[in-house]
Parts: sequence; structure tokens; C-alpha cells
Amino acid sequence: MTEPLPSRLPLGFRMAAVDAGIAAGDRLDLLLIVADEACSASCVFTRNRVVASPVALSRSHLERSGGQVRAILVNAGNANACTGEEGDLAAQREADLVAEALGCPVEQVLIFSTGVIGSRFPIEKVEAALPGLLLELDAERSPEERVQRAAAAIMTTDTRPKIARHLLGKDEDGPQILGIAKGSGMIHPDMATMLGFILSDAQPSLLLQGLLQAAVQESFHRITVDGDTSTNDAVLLWVSGKAEEEEEVLFLEGLDETCLSLAKQIAGDGEGATKLIEVRVSKALMPTHAVTVAKTIAQSLLVKTAVHGEDPNWGRILAAAGRAGAPLDTRKIRVGIGEVCLYEEDHPLPENEEAAKRHLQGSEVLLWVELGTGEVSASCWTCDLSEDYIKINAEYRT
Amino acid sequence: MTEPLPSRLPLGFRMAAVDAGIAAGDRLDLLLIVADEACSASCVFTRNRVVASPVALSRSHLERSGGQVRAILVNAGNANACTGEEGDLAAQREADLVAEALGCPVEQVLIFSTGVIGSRFPIEKVEAALPGLLLELDAERSPEERVQRAAAAIMTTDTRPKIARHLLGKDEDGPQILGIAKGSGMIHPDMATMLGFILSDAQPSLLLQGLLQAAVQESFHRITVDGDTSTNDAVLLWVSGKAEEEEEVLFLEGLDETCLSLAKQIAGDGEGATKLIEVRVSKALMPTHAVTVAKTIAQSLLVKTAVHGEDPNWGRILAAAGRAGAPLDTRKIRVGIGEVCLYEEDHPLPENEEAAKRHLQGSEVLLWVELGTGEVSASCWTCDLSEDYIKINAEYRT
Repeated sequence: MTEPLPSRLPLGFRMAAVDAGIAAGDRLDLLLIVADEACSASCVFTRNRVVASPVALSRSHLERSGGQVRAILVNAGNANACTGEEGDLAAQREADLVAEALGCPVEQVLIFSTGVIGSRFPIEKVEAALPGLLLELDAERSPEERVQRAAAAIMTTDTRPKIARHLLGKDEDGPQILGIAKGSGMIHPDMATMLGFILSDAQPSLLLQGLLQAAVQESFHRITVDGDTSTNDAVLLWVSGKAEEEEEVLFLEGLDETCLSLAKQIAGDGEGATKLIEVRVSKALMPTHAVTVAKTIAQSLLVKTAVHGEDPNWGRILAAAGRAGAPLDTRKIRVGIGEVCLYEEDHPLPENEEAAKRHLQGSEVLLWVELGTGEVSASCWTCDLSEDYIKINAEYRT
Repeated sequence: MTEPLPSRLPLGFRMAAVDAGIAAGDRLDLLLIVADEACSASCVFTRNRVVASPVALSRSHLERSGGQVRAILVNAGNANACTGEEGDLAAQREADLVAEALGCPVEQVLIFSTGVIGSRFPIEKVEAALPGLLLELDAERSPEERVQRAAAAIMTTDTRPKIARHLLGKDEDGPQILGIAKGSGMIHPDMATMLGFILSDAQPSLLLQGLLQAAVQESFHRITVDGDTSTNDAVLLWVSGKAEEEEEVLFLEGLDETCLSLAKQIAGDGEGATKLIEVRVSKALMPTHAVTVAKTIAQSLLVKTAVHGEDPNWGRILAAAGRAGAPLDTRKIRVGIGEVCLYEEDHPLPENEEAAKRHLQGSEVLLWVELGTGEVSASCWTCDLSEDYIKINAEYRT
């Protein structure tokens, strides 16, 4: 899942990251991305009913600007969520500061935050860091380094930066899609589920919101780490159109691939994860059936711990499939791990358990179920559940 | 939550447990409960679409016998689930053997199994153990010891037997309700979720199914350990009517209390649990809102790990409440732990965190949320999530 680092940024964008001292320790925690001029963006936000101040602000700014965005400011270390009116004022102040520095209308600035919920947001640290951050935009750094720093600056409990890139043209000089993301805890489908920023210098002819919704549906909404959903999460698609035009179909495919790559990187880097798990459900009657069963299996703690223990415990997969609520044919259902089938025609196949066990020893695991009711397939991704997940989350704040 | 052991069994029932060698190790694993004559029973079964052979058999027996039950046979160590036709035949053979020994119609015998899914059921061990089990029915043992042994024989990863008793009359001589249960892993609402056997020598005038459904709804369906649901689980209510008549209202209350006690014992003994957690949601507009929010919080891994770490992380409680989907008023919502409030009027109350931290150090923890939309309350119960949960489930079968 390692992606080649870009040798140039998408045309029309600059990005810079600094250590503003918001997140604990010596690390980058404040990211600014600036478009040369305001250009089209669309954003999918968390569906949590409790939303952080920056989410409320960015939603309203996007509406007021008609989806025209000049800059985004993102911090790690503090979510600015459940911080009351003071939090709202802090997010507003951040946008004001950026807008003033760039000389653009304030509604063209979006704010994103991730980190601890309910701690006062240290707006004075953003104020102090902003001049350096603006200078850093033009500092001498390679595009590779810029993207690495940007992806690192938005991490929370992630163990590695998440970057995906897709070339839309024939070579490095053509239009591209570049995405960075952060995830780890509080990752769950049906929500925007994390921070993702996807930039492109192409100019898709279809509405951005439709494109993004479709891509998110099959990627970020198909991953789960712990079933929790943050108050802050968002995926942004932002296009400058500065590169030469490409066919629509290529943009769609590239966007899908970029989102899926980022989503899988997030699932594989779930808190405490040692393995990326794909749950593939096929022979379903309807797409919703396949997705429901795949998600239920992907969310089963018993399945996730069995994978962690490298135990080919197909009974837990079957039990999870059974409680998903989607129709299945108990006589036709087949369950397998990797290349082998472990249960079919209402009978276990214990002779295949050794092969399944070997497959589980790898770092990428496939669990599959055939429902036997139709011809539709869908996959979800998750990670194993380890003692480290508990350690990370029992100690995260204290 | 320790219940006084009964000084006598409900009139009209005998029970016996032996070590049949089905579960690993030196332990009781086969339980027989016999009514002096067939009497009324009702059962709530798992809603999983994949059901074990004994569940299919017992469901059909209850239907054929019109809810008249003479005996139940329960084993731990093997779920007889996903074992195909051979499993069906084994469950049928168990019922045949018991019916033959007691001289009753086979449909008056119910079979329950719990343990590993997908392993061949060792019917020959049941056959070999049955004569001793029948003798054991009349062996000299105190009622206390009988109930202890019965509750121990159905345990899987439980760390302690679960027993609840309620006196319906004025003293020990009056009618009573006696319940035993097993739980631990695969505990989740919306399903029968575990094995529970509730016996009474009272004779309620209302339909058993209605009484049991109502009691289960507010007890077993309000607990969650890991969100998984077994293929086998069932709660049985079985009444002999051998004691003198009591008023209906007392039976209902007693049944509710017995079910709630067993459910809380199960939640508090969840796999790897160190604390019993009550999630109480109040000031909701509708009962379903309160239950939905309470369940979502109770199922949040981030909440459960924070409690394990004794971290008063109210932000995670609020985030879980927000994603539950029930209406809430973000300006009126209040969140607290134990006696103190940690968030109200859109503001954290950090001065109360010390008191919350002290409360979290206890073995019974209360998390509460006021939604601010109405006047309805509901509670759910769960346990903290510890490294031991992972260890138990990563190693359970291997």
C-alpha cells in the first residue's frame, strides 16, 4: 500500500506545515493549503449530531462561498469540539486570520481540527504560528517533502502518514489527483469518518459533490476500525482545473482509486492494528445485503480478535453473517479465508484450516462469504483488534 | 450483585449436573432439569439467522408440545452449531434419550448447547454420561449446592456462576422465581444473547410469552459486551404452579427483577471485564431515543476503554450520544459520571473531573446523559474493555 511520492504538487496549490505546539511533543501539527485563486471544492462531513466548531464553520463557509475555496487550515492535537461559544469564536478567528493574510473573503477559508474533544482550543498558538506558516509556503522544499510534512501534520494516533496519488494523464506532467488522510481511531462507515484532503489540477465536468459522494460511498464508508465516529471528520475534494482537460471517466476512476487507497491505508493503520482485513461478501441478492453482511463481519470484535490470534475461526464469521439481518441461504452459504473454503453445504471443512492459518499469518487478510442468494458482491475493510488498541485508548488522554 | 443461594428449589423441579467430558478440563458441563410432570414454558431464542441444531429442535418441540416441557438438557463446551445434518441428528438423539429415560413424549424435551461453533458434537459423551446424570437427580445434595452446580455446568468463558432468586411470598416457604444464566462473550441486545433458565413454582395467569418478552426487553436486551450475537442463545421461563397462587403483579415484578439481576451479572462478568457499567439516558423525548443513545454509548469501544483506563473522558460519551441518531439538544445536553456533571450548556466542567475519576476507580460505574428533549429515561449495562478481552478471544479456540 505504499504510494510513490509525487514529484510535483497538483498545479495551482501550495502547502506548508509547522510545529505550532498544539499537539504534545515535537511534531508538525498545523497545515495550510492555499490555492493560487479560489477554486471549486466539495466536502462530506461527519453525520454525528454533535459537531465540532470547525465543522459548523466550514459547512457554513462552503455554503456562503458557493463552494469556492482559497485556503484550508488544519490542526492536530485539539479537536475544538464541545468547547462551546469560545470554540466557535476560535474557529472563526482562525479563518479571519488566514483570510486577512491572503486577502480573500473569509468564507473562502475552511478550518479542520482533530485531536482531543472538550479541551479549550489554544487559538493563541495558531496566531503565533501563522506568520511562520505563511513563510513556509515558499520555503525551499521538494514536493515529496511538502506532501510528507502535510500528511504528518494531521496525524493523531496514526503510526504513518497516508498519501495516495493518481496520474490522470499519460505521465508525470499530466493532471493528477493527490490525497492525504488521517485516521486510526473513531473510524466507522456511514460517516465521513476521518480527515481526507483530495486535491486535483484536473477540471471534472460533473458536479464535485456527486463525484465525491460516490467515491466516498465505496471507500471511506466501507472501512471500520472501532465503530465510533468523530465529531470532526470530513473529506474534502478540491480542484484547481489548472492542468489540461481530461475525459470525465478518467477523473472518476482516479478519484475512486485515490479514495480507496487512502481508506485502506486508514483501515490498515487502525489503532493497534497488525493486519489489514478485507471482508468480501459475494452472491448476494442486493448490494445492500452484501454491504450489510460485510460491515457486520468487519465490526465483529470476535472476528477481529480471532484474526489477531491467527485463528481460522470461520464459526465467528458465519455467526456475524447470520446476525447481519440480510437474507442468506444456510444450505448454500460458503465461508472461507484466503484461498480456501472452510464451510460449505452446511458442513465444516477442517482439512482446509491449516491453509487458512497460513494465510492469516500474513499482514493482509481476506475473509469471504458467499450468501448464495444472488450475484452481487461488496467489500469492506478493517483491521485486527489487539491488546494495543486497548492500551492506546485506555491511556489516550491521561 | 451476590444473590443469596436458595434454601430450596422451586417446587416441582429437580436438577443435576455432571462432568461429561464435553468441555475441556475437569469441570461440570452437562445439566439436566426435570419437572415432576410436564408444565408450561416459553422461550425467547436468538435472532441470528444462523441457528444451532438445538435451537431449531427446541423451537419445533415447543411448538409441537404447545409449550409443555418435561425436561431440558444443557451442555457447555460445544455449541452444536454449523454442524450440518449430523448436528441435527445429535440434538434429536439427545432429546430421544432423555424422553426415553423419563417416559415422556420427545417434544416435551428441550436441548440447549453453548461453546465452540462448528466442531462435531460428541453425542457419544452425552450417551455415556446420561445414566449418571439421572442418578445424580436424586443424589444427596443441598439445594444450594444443586443450584451452584447447575449454574457452573453451563458456563463457558464466564468467571463465576450467575444465579438470581426472588421470593414471591412473604418468606422462604412461599412461591419463588429462580434463575441461572451464562454469558460472557457474544452478548448483545436485540437477541436472546445468552443462556438463561428461569424456573418458578408460581402460576402466573398471564401468557408466559408476553411476560417473558416484556422482562427480557428491559434486561437481557439491555446489555452488551461485544456486540456479537450467538447462534445458540435462549432464555427459558418455565413454571410448575406447584406453590400456592400469588397475585399477578408480584410475579411480573419478580420476573423483571430476576432477569435484570441475571443480565447485570452477565454484563459485569463480560470477557476480561473489571467493571460493570450502567449507561443511564434521561430527559429523552421517546423511550426508543433513550434506549438507542444508551446502547450506542454502551457499545462504544472508546467509551469502554476509557472506563477501563479510569479516564473521565466525557467527550467520548458525548460523541457516542451524537452519532446514535436520536434527537438531542446540543445546548441542553448534560453528560456526567457518577454523581458529577462534566458537560452542560455547551461547556466542559473540568473542575468535576477529579470526582469523576474517583468514581471510575470503583467496580460499578455510572455514565449518564440528559438529552434535554423530554422526560423519558432508560438504562443499558455493559463492562469495560480490557487487554484480557483480546487475549481471551485471540486464544479461545487455539
